[in-house]
Amino acid sequence: MSGVWGSNIKISIFGESHGNAIGINIDGLPSGFEIDMDKVLFEMDRRAPGKNSMSTARKESDFPEILSGYFEGKTTGTPLCAIIKNGDTRSKDYTKTKDYMRPGHADFTGYARYDGFNDYRGGGHFSGRITAPLVFAGAICKQILEKRGILIGAHISSIKNITDKEFNNIDISKEILENLRNMELPLINTSLEENIKHTILQTKYNGDSVGGSIECAVIGINPGVGNPFFDSVESTLAHLIFSVPAVKGIEFGRGFQMTNMFGSECNDEYYYDKDKVKTKTNNNGGVLGGITNGMPILFKVAIKPTASIAKEQNTIDIKNKENVKFRVEGRHDPCIVQRALPVIEAVTAIGILDLIKGRY
Amino acid sequence: MSGVWGSNIKISIFGESHGNAIGINIDGLPSGFEIDMDKVLFEMDRRAPGKNSMSTARKESDFPEILSGYFEGKTTGTPLCAIIKNGDTRSKDYTKTKDYMRPGHADFTGYARYDGFNDYRGGGHFSGRITAPLVFAGAICKQILEKRGILIGAHISSIKNITDKEFNNIDISKEILENLRNMELPLINTSLEENIKHTILQTKYNGDSVGGSIECAVIGINPGVGNPFFDSVESTLAHLIFSVPAVKGIEFGRGFQMTNMFGSECNDEYYYDKDKVKTKTNNNGGVLGGITNGMPILFKVAIKPTASIAKEQNTIDIKNKENVKFRVEGRHDPCIVQRALPVIEAVTAIGILDLIKGRY
Amino acid sequence: MSGVWGSNIKISIFGESHGNAIGINIDGLPSGFEIDMDKVLFEMDRRAPGKNSMSTARKESDFPEILSGYFEGKTTGTPLCAIIKNGDTRSKDYTKTKDYMRPGHADFTGYARYDGFNDYRGGGHFSGRITAPLVFAGAICKQILEKRGILIGAHISSIKNITDKEFNNIDISKEILENLRNMELPLINTSLEENIKHTILQTKYNGDSVGGSIECAVIGINPGVGNPFFDSVESTLAHLIFSVPAVKGIEFGRGFQMTNMFGSECNDEYYYDKDKVKTKTNNNGGVLGGITNGMPILFKVAIKPTASIAKEQNTIDIKNKENVKFRVEGRHDPCIVQRALPVIEAVTAIGILDLIKGRY
Amino acid sequence: MSGVWGSNIKISIFGESHGNAIGINIDGLPSGFEIDMDKVLFEMDRRAPGKNSMSTARKESDFPEILSGYFEGKTTGTPLCAIIKNGDTRSKDYTKTKDYMRPGHADFTGYARYDGFNDYRGGGHFSGRITAPLVFAGAICKQILEKRGILIGAHISSIKNITDKEFNNIDISKEILENLRNMELPLINTSLEENIKHTILQTKYNGDSVGGSIECAVIGINPGVGNPFFDSVESTLAHLIFSVPAVKGIEFGRGFQMTNMFGSECNDEYYYDKDKVKTKTNNNGGVLGGITNGMPILFKVAIKPTASIAKEQNTIDIKNKENVKFRVEGRHDPCIVQRALPVIEAVTAIGILDLIKGRY
Repeated sequence: MSGVWGSNIKISIFGESHGNAIGINIDGLPSGFEIDMDKVLFEMDRRAPGKNSMSTARKESDFPEILSGYFEGKTTGTPLCAIIKNGDTRSKDYTKTKDYMRPGHADFTGYARYDGFNDYRGGGHFSGRITAPLVFAGAICKQILEKRGILIGAHISSIKNITDKEFNNIDISKEILENLRNMELPLINTSLEENIKHTILQTKYNGDSVGGSIECAVIGINPGVGNPFFDSVESTLAHLIFSVPAVKGIEFGRGFQMTNMFGSECNDEYYYDKDKVKTKTNNNGGVLGGITNGMPILFKVAIKPTASIAKEQNTIDIKNKENVKFRVEGRHDPCIVQRALPVIEAVTAIGILDLIKGRY
Repeated sequence: MSGVWGSNIKISIFGESHGNAIGINIDGLPSGFEIDMDKVLFEMDRRAPGKNSMSTARKESDFPEILSGYFEGKTTGTPLCAIIKNGDTRSKDYTKTKDYMRPGHADFTGYARYDGFNDYRGGGHFSGRITAPLVFAGAICKQILEKRGILIGAHISSIKNITDKEFNNIDISKEILENLRNMELPLINTSLEENIKHTILQTKYNGDSVGGSIECAVIGINPGVGNPFFDSVESTLAHLIFSVPAVKGIEFGRGFQMTNMFGSECNDEYYYDKDKVKTKTNNNGGVLGGITNGMPILFKVAIKPTASIAKEQNTIDIKNKENVKFRVEGRHDPCIVQRALPVIEAVTAIGILDLIKGRY
Repeated sequence: MSGVWGSNIKISIFGESHGNAIGINIDGLPSGFEIDMDKVLFEMDRRAPGKNSMSTARKESDFPEILSGYFEGKTTGTPLCAIIKNGDTRSKDYTKTKDYMRPGHADFTGYARYDGFNDYRGGGHFSGRITAPLVFAGAICKQILEKRGILIGAHISSIKNITDKEFNNIDISKEILENLRNMELPLINTSLEENIKHTILQTKYNGDSVGGSIECAVIGINPGVGNPFFDSVESTLAHLIFSVPAVKGIEFGRGFQMTNMFGSECNDEYYYDKDKVKTKTNNNGGVLGGITNGMPILFKVAIKPTASIAKEQNTIDIKNKENVKFRVEGRHDPCIVQRALPVIEAVTAIGILDLIKGRY
Repeated sequence: MSGVWGSNIKISIFGESHGNAIGINIDGLPSGFEIDMDKVLFEMDRRAPGKNSMSTARKESDFPEILSGYFEGKTTGTPLCAIIKNGDTRSKDYTKTKDYMRPGHADFTGYARYDGFNDYRGGGHFSGRITAPLVFAGAICKQILEKRGILIGAHISSIKNITDKEFNNIDISKEILENLRNMELPLINTSLEENIKHTILQTKYNGDSVGGSIECAVIGINPGVGNPFFDSVESTLAHLIFSVPAVKGIEFGRGFQMTNMFGSECNDEYYYDKDKVKTKTNNNGGVLGGITNGMPILFKVAIKPTASIAKEQNTIDIKNKENVKFRVEGRHDPCIVQRALPVIEAVTAIGILDLIKGRY
């Protein structure tokens, strides 16, 4: 199975890159919520390709049509389904090399999983394009969370070896998260922008690609959200985030750095700031025992370099069962970190809304 | 909610550190499977405390009593429930400081989540002890997987700044995994053992604790296991692994290292080795698009330093709403990485069995 | 929540009677299955209104557009989503009486559930029209089951006080089920047809409506399908069937008649018919302990009279909070039993496919 | 699978009639709820056998031991597991005829489902005894519901052809439900008691068994609980109730009687009783479109005659693959309707608590 997730908010995703349409059905939204459709389109636009030289030239008609669950500008509470029609698809690009299993892509694993019957064009159901409906759903969840004072934001933590500053993990303002949303390359240290752009474009020129990491924050959340064991905050978010293509790692708080710290450095000491419980440090990223402690939830996500590169590669021809050399043709992103970023925010919003329901 | 997980294999966990018993109910096991109970006890013993100076002196009676689903030495196919009675518990250790929220522990988050009604003694439901039933369940799943040629094994990848060699990621033999199982400190480079022991004991002497990382491998798995989106191999395993207390990060294949590689370095090129499809490298850790490619599944897990330390710490007294200084008394592990390791293997086995069911 | 169901086959439904479109997303279908689209349309046509004087004159454009999961005539194995656009909707019919809670309908309960924000037009998400996607999904499941020798069929067991013969419960041929599919009013005793039509039309003339019951059979299923407790055959089918609007009862085998029998009459004695285990009677409807015994699965479903009637009724005006008298205007079915019948077959097919997966 | 159910309240059941213990793990209970254990034991006692000549002489030690999730007299909010040890089991009764598939029981279907590996003694996991943990869980849910003003009660609607009066379906008092709980044979028309007892004992004397039906009511529930489609009130309750052994039918409100009514008779007209919305009749049993309308929820359940009878029966010897005649030995209930009744109430309580969570 693949496409259904959730306990309180259930999402069901569908679509292939070059099929008729992609979309998502969302069940469990509150009724009577007034959706700000401009904000939804703004989020979808952040993910959309073709906006500048750093991303694929493919122009997608990322316009969501809401089919149900939405009446007179408000959610009805019944399942809300939205689809995005596939427009500018060049299926010919793909058919000629359909038997060549592109390294780093899901061509071979999809072939194995579906016995060769999956739609191979443009990656089919494995295409990054299928994340557009997740951004749509996430944009609605974000609005619902913001009404409750919970804000989600992210910045590029690194591209190749260029590393941004980290969030101030005990004090992240609403403003900083809102500012990041409006940047082409969301960075805390904006002076890195030129260097990153240069690296991406140079890599593109070389027919290659780069990856990077994303740091995401959830602020304004109460203590007591989440669960021990199987529906912990970390389990829930990691589950969703590893559904985003190209994600290969996630760490909460100091994550892997904690393996090289002493307990006495790592433990976040509590104190009362008037009536509010706070911690002096936030190495644990706002989560202990799977449950929020009221500090910002913080995690970093590793995004691998785009699998599609222009360089010649070795692979197999699965039909003729032979080793071949080939080049992936078509339009590619030399770097997808900046486009993956709003997707990470979106699935985080879905996950957090699922977790808080019934607690708020 | 917290305690129920799974699609094909459903597990339901329960228990508190100082309650009557802890346990697990496992639904969806095949019928007629002959359990090798010695192997189950061997796995449970790997996790058990009190074996040497590196772990807590608490002697737990980690003996599982099977209540159901097991008849004449074989699984019946109906739910198999096992419990472990709680024996050597010193509840007094905890009551005197029950209102002191131990830093790094789930005391405060559990308090917030359950409005103060959770059992605080020894961490209650948040105790690492509750992983014993997971090891029990995982030990059965491991046996079922081994019958199908799938083997799971792990080694300590690092303790503090001491780093073991990595698995040879394209060729891991059954023997190496089996050898690791029998080591007190499972290491590829066994010459590090003394150094690690020394570090742990020195840390203990200082009243402090250390963490580390674990590298886990799944070998012998066919291509085509897993799903795009929400039930990907990574999502499934990450979900379970973040349920293990003290885990703060997970990365598949090269993980965060991939963020500093070019696509041309990162992509794993395919080739035919006779009829079998292989990759020349395995940077993706055997998973692409959420689905196995037949190469070893590889991932690393970050384990934070044990939260319980002997040093004095600042925290809050939640009853009197004031800031306090205190020392965590009782018995502690200066390092739990080696005890977490069989738990990681166990939940991996549960996850893999859940994923392959219906495919094998 | 409302719209997601399933373990092995997951369906996610959406839509309102007068919205843009209704539809269903189906996850877990096998890959490479060649769908006979004529058969799908045939099933959808069985449910469609406007075919004769016995059903509503509303002409629906019940044509499913497949958006995903279907490639070159075959299922891909990834989620298959289909939508049906809403065409001939007369929204004006409904707005003038939108605050009048129609007796027998879900107007008031939907209002209470969704705090008045649900789409009231034509029953919105509660409309019988939303069963069209279920028939679409069921038609695909039926084809998959038929490839495995499992056939599902139903007849009208009664309309008002006119009662058809029962299935021969120990021996139902493929032919009889196939014949029933082609009848306008599927009956074993076809001589009742005129009488039933007359009753329905007379009722329509009186501005009233009638109900009836449906007997459904599943033949060709192996022993051993289903589970004790929560996923029994009866639980699974009842869960789905009570999702069909207007269903108010279900009984398996002799059902409520069994309450007036002795155990010695009721027990179905086993015997070997060559190598095959059979029962001499089939009072239990092919299911014992929640699991099939290889005999036909048989159950009856009660369908209440259509709630929309032309007669004047008392009810409340929920906006003005007063008691009112009114007439439901618009187009109504005087009897929906014959249109509910293919829906019952469809959800039965979905349920059975969910249950057998992994067993076949 | 079999043993896990629920969305907001998750239950996981286990055990066999003659194994070590049976039990249930309940996840999702509120924290801090003070359980009245006397009431729990009272409910369990209602189901317990051996109380009089009408039920089996087997004395079960139906005493629940709570293993977890319960601390200082209150629920903790973490999973609450309780077990009941199996005491007075006469395994020898069963082994001599273990290959004789008892008609009306799950012996053959369980054999087929679990390939002969299930525990056959006393029906194993299919035994009615496994409902004791459901009564335990239901007793807790009942208390939680009662705190919110929701009361569940049932009476014997019929035994064989002796039929009790029905509930006054628009006005059921708390008192009548509480009175019924204290009766050995819960009846509205108590003058039938002698006749029913006589029928049951006469049947027992004849080596036979009888069945009957149960009418259950849920009062005090708000409008707006439940969902359209897959988690309707009817779907949820039917799912659970068909998990109770011997249940063969369920109907809501007038159920099958509605098939012989006109719409104008069947529709329940609304009116304002001061500010409260009520219906003049309650043919729909308090549920429309899967959602409560605030009137009592009402349904009837068909319980088949006990499958175990003393009379000689024909069946198969599955080992020797031959037809045989035999008598079921051991202790039997000539009628289980009165013992099934508290189980029906219990699973109804579980289902209602699952549905209302988040709405109340």
